Amino acid sequence: MRPGFTVHARAGAARAGRLVTAHGVVETPAFMPVGTYGTVKAMTPEELESLGAQIILGNTFHLMLRPGAKIIAAHGGLHRFMHWTHPILTDSGGFQVFSLKSLRRISEEGVWFRSPVDGREVRLTPEDSMEVQLALRSDIAMALDDCTAYPATEAEARASMERSMRWAVRSHAHYYRPAAQEPAGGLFGIVQGGMHMPLRLASLDALLRLEWPGLAVGGLAVGESEQERLGVLESLVPQMPAGLPRYLMGVGRPEDIVAAVLCGIDLFDCVMPTRHARNGHLFTASGVINIRNSAFAADLSPVDASCDCYTCRNFTRAYLRHLDRCNEILGSRLNTIHNLHFYIALMRALRAAIAAGTLGEWARQFLAARRDRGAVA
Amino acid sequence: MRPGFTVHARAGAARAGRLVTAHGVVETPAFMPVGTYGTVKAMTPEELESLGAQIILGNTFHLMLRPGAKIIAAHGGLHRFMHWTHPILTDSGGFQVFSLKSLRRISEEGVWFRSPVDGREVRLTPEDSMEVQLALRSDIAMALDDCTAYPATEAEARASMERSMRWAVRSHAHYYRPAAQEPAGGLFGIVQGGMHMPLRLASLDALLRLEWPGLAVGGLAVGESEQERLGVLESLVPQMPAGLPRYLMGVGRPEDIVAAVLCGIDLFDCVMPTRHARNGHLFTASGVINIRNSAFAADLSPVDASCDCYTCRNFTRAYLRHLDRCNEILGSRLNTIHNLHFYIALMRALRAAIAAGTLGEWARQFLAARRDRGAVA
Repeated sequence: MRPGFTVHARAGAARAGRLVTAHGVVETPAFMPVGTYGTVKAMTPEELESLGAQIILGNTFHLMLRPGAKIIAAHGGLHRFMHWTHPILTDSGGFQVFSLKSLRRISEEGVWFRSPVDGREVRLTPEDSMEVQLALRSDIAMALDDCTAYPATEAEARASMERSMRWAVRSHAHYYRPAAQEPAGGLFGIVQGGMHMPLRLASLDALLRLEWPGLAVGGLAVGESEQERLGVLESLVPQMPAGLPRYLMGVGRPEDIVAAVLCGIDLFDCVMPTRHARNGHLFTASGVINIRNSAFAADLSPVDASCDCYTCRNFTRAYLRHLDRCNEILGSRLNTIHNLHFYIALMRALRAAIAAGTLGEWARQFLAARRDRGAVA
Repeated sequence: MRPGFTVHARAGAARAGRLVTAHGVVETPAFMPVGTYGTVKAMTPEELESLGAQIILGNTFHLMLRPGAKIIAAHGGLHRFMHWTHPILTDSGGFQVFSLKSLRRISEEGVWFRSPVDGREVRLTPEDSMEVQLALRSDIAMALDDCTAYPATEAEARASMERSMRWAVRSHAHYYRPAAQEPAGGLFGIVQGGMHMPLRLASLDALLRLEWPGLAVGGLAVGESEQERLGVLESLVPQMPAGLPRYLMGVGRPEDIVAAVLCGIDLFDCVMPTRHARNGHLFTASGVINIRNSAFAADLSPVDASCDCYTCRNFTRAYLRHLDRCNEILGSRLNTIHNLHFYIALMRALRAAIAAGTLGEWARQFLAARRDRGAVA
């Protein structure tokens, strides 16, 4: 079924809504933990559920290489393969392919790249990406786009955006092709155009010639400054249809998410909470701490005394530091639980503040506290 | 408190009993998952609990090096450090030190070794081992022994055993020293003597001059044949006091455990289920499978159709193989759950067969089935 979206509260440009999919409802603004290889690293599906995750992201690029779409399709799709019963969004694979740089070549038809797994040459066209995502049976699929590099001249950004728009048309045509079975989900389009506002608006116009159950903002979190990113969002988002969910791809730090929610963004994904966890970087109300620091060797307090996650309720900083030093799997697990809890609690707080009409004050305090404490991620 | 032990059912030499400690009851025969660094690798305490683990083993050698006894003592002991509320047995550190071979030198006082963590020289005397184990507040501590190499001449085995017996006396004297606080648990003695039965019996005699709440058989699972091991057990165990629990250290494969239970052993530990899990070797009713095998790439069946563990209820062999190929932490977790479930279910079946008076037949079938299928671990 095509996802449906309703907004039930607003606070300035920010909105609280409900995204309805075949696998259930996602309350927005929402954060999607990233499950690259059919697993949110270190977590079981039940743990994600109990943390309050309502939707996760799967990476088409990685899954098409390992184990391949065929094996996942034989399981009946990605949900059953990984035993996750709630909504899944899959990306198109484009972002990862473009990150390969020297290992790929691009044409109007699509992208060819050397598999980082076994070196074989792999093709990814809009039609290929749709085939994989249809096989994965994700609730939300993403159009294949040409991810504009940063920085890019106006001419470069225009050429890239225009190719993305032609690929969006091909993605749409293939995902919804009339002869085929009704897709399990719906396809989101992606606005490109780099840091060039006229291109961003042209991209949005081009997309709106087709019907999408949601739109994404791509090509951000690629190296631009915070100011540039907010500049794009502040100009672009008000032009996006109010009735569609808006997904800011790959962003980011807690403060970036808060700022983007204030601009009217509804959906987020980022590897930061899970990757940081495995590197011992833990989010707290007063900023990020590195559990590897020897200052924590005999610290009997929890990571964050104000946190009620499983990790903080049961384990000390000294224990977590010890697990990290010994490369114990449980360390990655406990850190991941804590960081995902932080992100998911952040989204819950944002939704509550929007509903209560207190978002402005809440966000000012949140951002000021992090700036004061020199929070870095 | 000193552990207490009662036997409530017998089948030949085998017994079913209850080992009572300050942290609860252990039904025997029991298997102790190994928690080297204050974590049974990849598992939370709650997962171990739900698998039915009643007691775990902590490694004094590893914990004294990282994080050190002082930090664990500051937490109130190993239970609180690692958030495990059930019984813990700690080994003495001797076995690991003796495994270092060229990196250690031994004297009557104790052993000196180079820390494999940072290269510093570390001393381990019987008194040192007791100090660490008392700080860990384990329910069962083990005397420091000189672990006899295999093979060993009679003279070598005798010298090693006699040193172990002198160290047992020193361990006992220090663990229960009168001026100190009452220990949290009790101290087990360890019978040594290599493959030489007169030495084994002399070792037992020497130990029985002191009071121990339990006795262990050490110096097995060090390279001897199955026949040699069973030879020692069949001659030694009938001479051990019937009222004390008997712990066979470091053994082993499921078939070895069954054979030892038939000889009258009550307690086991081994890294095999957890280490095998991380290497993709999974125990099943029809032997061990290697999930890395490409034959499982598209296998939609569970690891073992007759198994009701979390892994087998929810995930396919194809998914587990995929996780293993991608080095995903969840793979180690799901494999560990399955293998520990296998071992703990095995012990439950052994206890039930002893109580039902069907142990002989049960064991014959179990061992025959594994021989037929060429089960290897």
